[in-house]
Amino acid sequence: MRRTLFDEDHDAFRASVRTFVEREIQPYYQEWAELGLVDRELYTKAARQGLVGLQVPEEYGGAGATSYKFNAVFIEETILGDANLGSLRVHSEVCLPYLLRYCTPEQRERWLSAVARGELVLALAITEPGTGSDVAGVRTTARREGDHYVLNGAKTFITGGANADRVLVVCRTSPATEDDRRAGLSILVVDTRSAGFEVGRKLDKIGLRAQDTMELSFTDIRVPVEDLLGEEGKAFGYLAHNLAQERLTIAVAGMASAVRALELATAYAQERSVFGKRLQDFQNTKFVLAECATEIAAGQALVDQSIEALDRGMLTPADAARAKLFVSEMQQRVVDKCLQVHGGYGYINEYPIAGLYADARVTRIFGGTSEVMKSIIAKSLGL
Amino acid sequence: MRRTLFDEDHDAFRASVRTFVEREIQPYYQEWAELGLVDRELYTKAARQGLVGLQVPEEYGGAGATSYKFNAVFIEETILGDANLGSLRVHSEVCLPYLLRYCTPEQRERWLSAVARGELVLALAITEPGTGSDVAGVRTTARREGDHYVLNGAKTFITGGANADRVLVVCRTSPATEDDRRAGLSILVVDTRSAGFEVGRKLDKIGLRAQDTMELSFTDIRVPVEDLLGEEGKAFGYLAHNLAQERLTIAVAGMASAVRALELATAYAQERSVFGKRLQDFQNTKFVLAECATEIAAGQALVDQSIEALDRGMLTPADAARAKLFVSEMQQRVVDKCLQVHGGYGYINEYPIAGLYADARVTRIFGGTSEVMKSIIAKSLGL
Amino acid sequence: MRRTLFDEDHDAFRASVRTFVEREIQPYYQEWAELGLVDRELYTKAARQGLVGLQVPEEYGGAGATSYKFNAVFIEETILGDANLGSLRVHSEVCLPYLLRYCTPEQRERWLSAVARGELVLALAITEPGTGSDVAGVRTTARREGDHYVLNGAKTFITGGANADRVLVVCRTSPATEDDRRAGLSILVVDTRSAGFEVGRKLDKIGLRAQDTMELSFTDIRVPVEDLLGEEGKAFGYLAHNLAQERLTIAVAGMASAVRALELATAYAQERSVFGKRLQDFQNTKFVLAECATEIAAGQALVDQSIEALDRGMLTPADAARAKLFVSEMQQRVVDKCLQVHGGYGYINEYPIAGLYADARVTRIFGGTSEVMKSIIAKSLGL
Amino acid sequence: MRRTLFDEDHDAFRASVRTFVEREIQPYYQEWAELGLVDRELYTKAARQGLVGLQVPEEYGGAGATSYKFNAVFIEETILGDANLGSLRVHSEVCLPYLLRYCTPEQRERWLSAVARGELVLALAITEPGTGSDVAGVRTTARREGDHYVLNGAKTFITGGANADRVLVVCRTSPATEDDRRAGLSILVVDTRSAGFEVGRKLDKIGLRAQDTMELSFTDIRVPVEDLLGEEGKAFGYLAHNLAQERLTIAVAGMASAVRALELATAYAQERSVFGKRLQDFQNTKFVLAECATEIAAGQALVDQSIEALDRGMLTPADAARAKLFVSEMQQRVVDKCLQVHGGYGYINEYPIAGLYADARVTRIFGGTSEVMKSIIAKSLGL
Repeated sequence: MRRTLFDEDHDAFRASVRTFVEREIQPYYQEWAELGLVDRELYTKAARQGLVGLQVPEEYGGAGATSYKFNAVFIEETILGDANLGSLRVHSEVCLPYLLRYCTPEQRERWLSAVARGELVLALAITEPGTGSDVAGVRTTARREGDHYVLNGAKTFITGGANADRVLVVCRTSPATEDDRRAGLSILVVDTRSAGFEVGRKLDKIGLRAQDTMELSFTDIRVPVEDLLGEEGKAFGYLAHNLAQERLTIAVAGMASAVRALELATAYAQERSVFGKRLQDFQNTKFVLAECATEIAAGQALVDQSIEALDRGMLTPADAARAKLFVSEMQQRVVDKCLQVHGGYGYINEYPIAGLYADARVTRIFGGTSEVMKSIIAKSLGL
Repeated sequence: MRRTLFDEDHDAFRASVRTFVEREIQPYYQEWAELGLVDRELYTKAARQGLVGLQVPEEYGGAGATSYKFNAVFIEETILGDANLGSLRVHSEVCLPYLLRYCTPEQRERWLSAVARGELVLALAITEPGTGSDVAGVRTTARREGDHYVLNGAKTFITGGANADRVLVVCRTSPATEDDRRAGLSILVVDTRSAGFEVGRKLDKIGLRAQDTMELSFTDIRVPVEDLLGEEGKAFGYLAHNLAQERLTIAVAGMASAVRALELATAYAQERSVFGKRLQDFQNTKFVLAECATEIAAGQALVDQSIEALDRGMLTPADAARAKLFVSEMQQRVVDKCLQVHGGYGYINEYPIAGLYADARVTRIFGGTSEVMKSIIAKSLGL
Repeated sequence: MRRTLFDEDHDAFRASVRTFVEREIQPYYQEWAELGLVDRELYTKAARQGLVGLQVPEEYGGAGATSYKFNAVFIEETILGDANLGSLRVHSEVCLPYLLRYCTPEQRERWLSAVARGELVLALAITEPGTGSDVAGVRTTARREGDHYVLNGAKTFITGGANADRVLVVCRTSPATEDDRRAGLSILVVDTRSAGFEVGRKLDKIGLRAQDTMELSFTDIRVPVEDLLGEEGKAFGYLAHNLAQERLTIAVAGMASAVRALELATAYAQERSVFGKRLQDFQNTKFVLAECATEIAAGQALVDQSIEALDRGMLTPADAARAKLFVSEMQQRVVDKCLQVHGGYGYINEYPIAGLYADARVTRIFGGTSEVMKSIIAKSLGL
Repeated sequence: MRRTLFDEDHDAFRASVRTFVEREIQPYYQEWAELGLVDRELYTKAARQGLVGLQVPEEYGGAGATSYKFNAVFIEETILGDANLGSLRVHSEVCLPYLLRYCTPEQRERWLSAVARGELVLALAITEPGTGSDVAGVRTTARREGDHYVLNGAKTFITGGANADRVLVVCRTSPATEDDRRAGLSILVVDTRSAGFEVGRKLDKIGLRAQDTMELSFTDIRVPVEDLLGEEGKAFGYLAHNLAQERLTIAVAGMASAVRALELATAYAQERSVFGKRLQDFQNTKFVLAECATEIAAGQALVDQSIEALDRGMLTPADAARAKLFVSEMQQRVVDKCLQVHGGYGYINEYPIAGLYADARVTRIFGGTSEVMKSIIAKSLGL
């Protein structure tokens, strides 16, 4: 079914993203995959061409976009171009919204124009070695001392941690209260050049090879109070609010991965022959790809509806959870079937389907596991 | 996510359908289920209140509706009211569109106002004992003799066959050609009081108990040529065109069944206790129902998008096939899980979930099996 | 793979069961299905021919069999003969083992020879309207008054309740203790002619049409103390022990159902043509039936291994739970796929596959739901 | 359920394998994974300790084992020790049986004692860039010239190709006949030091990191006729025969992977806490792991039954196909669920579950895809 959410502006933007992917991403992607890190310049180039950070207001040098649809287009086109750039998505779709929403005017001055120029790269540090998807379990602490916080703790699974200039660190500024485990959390926008800020190991993952996933540790970092984002103790609410867009972003990327997998498998089935006939002439091939196309149609309808809802300010946490849960599970099934169509070649990394498969597995885990999504959805059902 | 396709007119219509269901359907449904047949008067009552046959133009006494959304509302509300009225859907959503589209002005006079008054009940006879979903395999013949066709053959699985006044019979008016198995098929709008028209057995089914599913046989029935619908030999194209709406109708009903199942299971989980705690307090219950809600959200997004596309005249056969395939498979999974939540009571017919389960199984078969859907979808992928 | 657990004796027994099914069951089965009850004489006939109650010792007129393999053969052959006789299985595989194991010599005299002659029909009453699979939640009480118990309460889902002469009623003879919800339960072997014993409604089920499933109620029934089975307060342990064989019996029947479904679908695919070719020549048909055969092979291996373990006295509750869980879920998938191969005919009750489908749904519920099985299995994993 | 196929000899053998894994494999495994290749000496050490090549007759220095059970033990213990040594399995379980079965006495002399000493490493070359699982499509040719064959062609996906001394190359010695695509294939046991034998790229795979998977090319290699294995033109039959053991071997390894995944996830669930309680105390964790244990029980029963059948010479190709198909699909489901239990850590390669996941994906492809398995099984059903 033709998607109905995009107009000519989005189409034009899509064309320019596609060109950017061809010129500035695809030639380097393999190299980044080997390094486990995208080039720092990518952020600058993308920002300069107005492809990321679109929501930065015009007064700070951004495009002042108010619709998420442009973001969706950017995400889709990178994935469709066989480039999975998680750290860029985290910078632009996950971190920037926090700045846009919670910065003081003074902070906006300091940070937003730098983001618009691609000179300030962001990462978000929530997860700790012991917490997983349990945000309230955060143990990193920031003790107030005069006009500074003293930050101590460790984070893990930090996407984009290697290139970041500032990391939004979720930490405890006061203990949880008896009846609210979620109280006492704050966000500090920590300068990565601070003394005591240490970037640890780059985690060796099954997939997402061009995306750095880092361990960070904080030892007595002195963070000026003016780098506190929003109000002290309110971080849990901020996270809950912003997680909707983060999860939709995961869903948008997952959808594009499934669409790309189907494109690859369809093309392969059309070209490849086995047992003396074309793969596409086997009923099983037809049926398997038809099943994929069907699941994709449902997922895309849900995602597009969710994008419209986000733009209207109506995407609830449960809506976002449903989109993330459905798409990430569907993505897995579709990518798995499309890999199988490739036979042995599907297992070889030089075929893009192998990358889609290896990348897909974490989608049901990061941004909140499928289990966390189910808990959120169940609550919305009154259970 | 709030559905965005309905406006106040639809909401008002929904309210009146709900009242109709409560007053005119629910009190009799159990009786109809036992008889295997709805009361003939139901058609008249529903038509009189302007609830079915909405698309009949005002000049013939109808509402002249041009949007399928009202139809969707009617279908949804019957299912949500625990009444699965397949024969009524066939009359209104499947057969009537043929008359609206292919009748001559003279036929419109004869048939449409009778439909608007609820005095002409329709059924559609495609399937034959040997053909299944293979329309081109039809063997019922209509031989032209002067100003009549002489109709011979047998049909099976005819929903609404017992109450119908006119049956749209798909038959061969000339043999298939060598290079086109689909040529030579026509539709006759046969009067069920004709000599030689015999209503055979009512088939005893796993579910759909209030819906008659009949065998019909035709022995030398003389059908006047003015009861030919559209042009001779073009029936395959007509069917292909109208099947999109038929399949969407199946998807709309399937969606409502899944939604209803989730309502029932959620309510049951909230009330019922086992092993000393409420069913809803088990994580498994929460997760299973959250999975159902998620699949329902995706299915509903797809169906709503399809309804909008149908209204715009843009719903392709492959789109309809995707909607039917996705929803019918999803409906099965959801209804199955929601039955399981009921434990042993789910297997007892007095609980509506049991009816939803028994009814659901045929959704992947009628209106074209899942396998036929996959073939259509694969073709649309270029396979 | 050839099954290796049967020898010539079992083969001979199988042949005689097959004859019995053909002569004494198949001619009447449809009638029983319509009545919702098998003929009382069936028990007598089967017992007389030495086909049920095989474990009754020779001194009481039984065959003194010590292997469950004969039981398995009887169960398999009825199902393979399209006869699902739940009440007979409950009598023979579920209830009789309680008598064999826990009767006093005096009770053995009274009851075992009557069972061997087919003159004493048994049922087991555990489930109550409020308890489901939670045995410890039983609220039926038996208060000791002199040399009688006074029994009050209600049971539901009682298979074979309509024909039973004696019902093994699980009841509370003393309240649960604070630290053991399972204490205080006993089994009374209640004469169904007792004053106060009332057989309530026959429950109208999705399937299992030839099996009566009854509500029972007990009002001040005076049960002689000599009809207490085993020791007072130990029923939970007895149930836990005997449930292994009950669950294996469900697995054996479920396996046979899956095997029968595959036989039916294979035959149908070989005979039926559609779209101008035989159903069996479609790759999808081949693949779907191959998937069924594969799941069946795994299930049969597990069941056969479990039968051998039961015979060696080594089948743990967790083993039995695994067999029941695996087979009942597998049976559902297989029967569903095999029905789909039949197209519309699969939904019509005169085709045996329809009965297999309608019957299958309760297998994941009775004898302990899939959720209860998972709890048992998880415990065995140390979770 | 306790497995019943092993006796004390197998248990003793298992203990010595376990020691070998600890001493000679685990300390080096990470290094081999990084190189993409096991150390050549591993073959020698394993052979010297009598752990591989057990079937070599005593006269050639082997153990003369006739039961596959020892092989199964070796495969299981390596996988359970987190070492997936595909090239060793290919050498010992896949290639050696060809030599044992089809060698002339002269060839036995030359090759078997070298194998027994671990000095002759074998690989098998069937698949070609264009053929996938379609053996009959092989295009590598061996033209007879005097007492040599001249071999030309290319192979891909050759496990163990980098270390092999001899490669069993499937090639065409004469063209396929009109009515038999499978005719004309032969096996040459090619010395890898021959002129014209080129080892190409090591394929970069999603997983199986310690296993080399090579491209090979053959340019006018002169292979002495005495290196023909068996008779000219009969290779298809040889392959069909030996594939049963190869596929069972894949099933045995897949089973062990699933068992190991469950061990890892159970241990993780027991240790890890999240949201303030232990992972194992969540009902979802319990249920998911119980499902895994259940599928594992069924798979193990099937595999053990298949091993017994192989030892009796009764394992048909369809039996082996069923075992491979069931286990490889089950392994995927189990490993996937067990990874999910690990949350984000499951995606990090230092956790063994990540390796199990990345390794698992190819199991449904190599040794014949799931689709090929289904074709074989369907044929055995008469379809």
